[in-house]
Amino acid sequence: MLQETRDQPQALSRTLSAGIASAEELRRHFGKRRPRLIVLVARGTSDNAAQFGRYLIEITTRIPVSLAAPSILTLYGCPVDLRDVVVIGISQSGESTDTNAVLEDARRQGATTIGITNDASSAMAGTVQFPLLIGAGVEISVAATKTYTTQLLALYLVGYALNGAIELDQLRKVPEWVRGVLELEEDIEALVERYFFMTRAVTVGRGLNYANALEFGLKLMETCYVVAERFSAADLMHGPIALVERAFPVFVFAPAGVTWPSMSCVLDRLQELKAETLVITDPRNTGARDKAARVIEIPQAPGPNTLHQDPSTHDLYTPIPYIVPGQLFAGHLAALKGLNPDLPRTLNKITRTM
Amino acid sequence: MLQETRDQPQALSRTLSAGIASAEELRRHFGKRRPRLIVLVARGTSDNAAQFGRYLIEITTRIPVSLAAPSILTLYGCPVDLRDVVVIGISQSGESTDTNAVLEDARRQGATTIGITNDASSAMAGTVQFPLLIGAGVEISVAATKTYTTQLLALYLVGYALNGAIELDQLRKVPEWVRGVLELEEDIEALVERYFFMTRAVTVGRGLNYANALEFGLKLMETCYVVAERFSAADLMHGPIALVERAFPVFVFAPAGVTWPSMSCVLDRLQELKAETLVITDPRNTGARDKAARVIEIPQAPGPNTLHQDPSTHDLYTPIPYIVPGQLFAGHLAALKGLNPDLPRTLNKITRTM
Repeated sequence: MLQETRDQPQALSRTLSAGIASAEELRRHFGKRRPRLIVLVARGTSDNAAQFGRYLIEITTRIPVSLAAPSILTLYGCPVDLRDVVVIGISQSGESTDTNAVLEDARRQGATTIGITNDASSAMAGTVQFPLLIGAGVEISVAATKTYTTQLLALYLVGYALNGAIELDQLRKVPEWVRGVLELEEDIEALVERYFFMTRAVTVGRGLNYANALEFGLKLMETCYVVAERFSAADLMHGPIALVERAFPVFVFAPAGVTWPSMSCVLDRLQELKAETLVITDPRNTGARDKAARVIEIPQAPGPNTLHQDPSTHDLYTPIPYIVPGQLFAGHLAALKGLNPDLPRTLNKITRTM
Repeated sequence: MLQETRDQPQALSRTLSAGIASAEELRRHFGKRRPRLIVLVARGTSDNAAQFGRYLIEITTRIPVSLAAPSILTLYGCPVDLRDVVVIGISQSGESTDTNAVLEDARRQGATTIGITNDASSAMAGTVQFPLLIGAGVEISVAATKTYTTQLLALYLVGYALNGAIELDQLRKVPEWVRGVLELEEDIEALVERYFFMTRAVTVGRGLNYANALEFGLKLMETCYVVAERFSAADLMHGPIALVERAFPVFVFAPAGVTWPSMSCVLDRLQELKAETLVITDPRNTGARDKAARVIEIPQAPGPNTLHQDPSTHDLYTPIPYIVPGQLFAGHLAALKGLNPDLPRTLNKITRTM
């Protein structure tokens, strides 16, 4: 898992170099047409990527997005009306049975189907009209890392293909940016010692980084056996904040941009409750350091334009670099506990859902 | 909270008697028109009701449903295209700020707007074209109970208004069915003693009862300060099952119907892992009793037709009665721990999201 985490700059570069051509082809397919709805379908880590995709696509294209509930088709036998819809499946292996069932039904109904997968010979790649291959390379660890970040990158390419406000030049900076974040590994390895006895935790994000709270929580559960309850900042304040007591560990994703004032309020509230907060943030978020027990500061993106120019989407390109400290944290905490993060107890790499 | 849980048969009857007229009016408004998309918007317990609504409406009408992410509008300032869409807000108080912001934007864009709320004089009721009042009466406890079940009932009425396959005669049986479930209170009060020291738990549901797993988990967090991680059965098997060790408490919603074979496999897996499983189930699910440490059996619906006649939707009317044991469990466990479930630490009844 740690080696695959470190491989991400190369994996992301491969995804970009192969993916841009597929994205241009898809862009020609759509032309000026606007689909009435985008449906994303996925499970597990890929479903966390889908959560990111929902925010990204709605923000950059204004087309409504729905995350499919596959059991409505596979158990209840009720195919939802998918005419004029774009259905996007996401699966590392391309063999997730219920994701593929939704894609097959969508194709039968005449929907445009896209499959984001790591395996060109998978059932998913054979089912969809437009396979979008991530170039992650073989992923051995059951706990996905480089396939998650390359799935996010593929979703940016889908947004671009849908004429969304996404700049390829910004995407090209991402592999180098991730390389910069990976330099935090030694600090994070030292930091995890404090969390050796942690059994419960809460992870929090908002907007484009909400998916990272879901994904980091999943990594803590799968690899470290920590019960990590995962929330959007808004939902946390709407009830579950009652959980948080003195020294309760809370992990907060707080980039610069429109979500920062909201996350800053959450940090204030957590400080009042004397929570043990670790915040993953931008050095420009002045005040973050004073509000949290521990801080991981993400270095700036390389090159002159470090923030997306529209202030409402300053955080547009942050989700890929921001998950990296979470992957390093989970990998090192598992190692510290003497667990094997590559092979969590009772899991297989491909999950077949009945 | 316990008194409000016991008040549910009357609250449900009131919701039905006032709501059927509103539903008929809405049904006339839609006529033969099929909206291209339904968007549900809510926070907290109401968001759990929205999760139920997504399954119910897709299953019974085949119209795609999306759960809104309000921050896309309220923080990112990106209104999603809502023409020809029906937007349904759900809020007990009708004063949830970001839910109302989405409804205002939807109305501006010409969407049909519906508001499911407990307060006829609320901002929500004033914003939407079609207020659908739940007749829950004043709810004092911060931990919502009767407003959740009456919201579910209101969503059945919306499904009916959209020409969904929902029978009013079946809905009329629900208050009496809930009265039958409330007779389990004494048994549940005795059962919770076993859980006095529980600090972590997992709740699981699937399909129409997935929302109940979310809602029961939320109740455990808010009122008992148990970190309750909540999953669909499919997502649990896709990674987080690694958490489950000997005597780990897992709560499973398993009615009769199309989800039972899947839930039965989950129970088998949990039994292999020696989890401490409590299953809320139907006495006709033979085998449930042998697969779990503890069982709560839900009595049959009153009257001759105890199951919905189409076998694919046997569980169509189960979600309201099935949450009741969860409400009783959380209320009694909080009382046993000396906590006040009506006023969880650090919470208010109305949450204003920034």
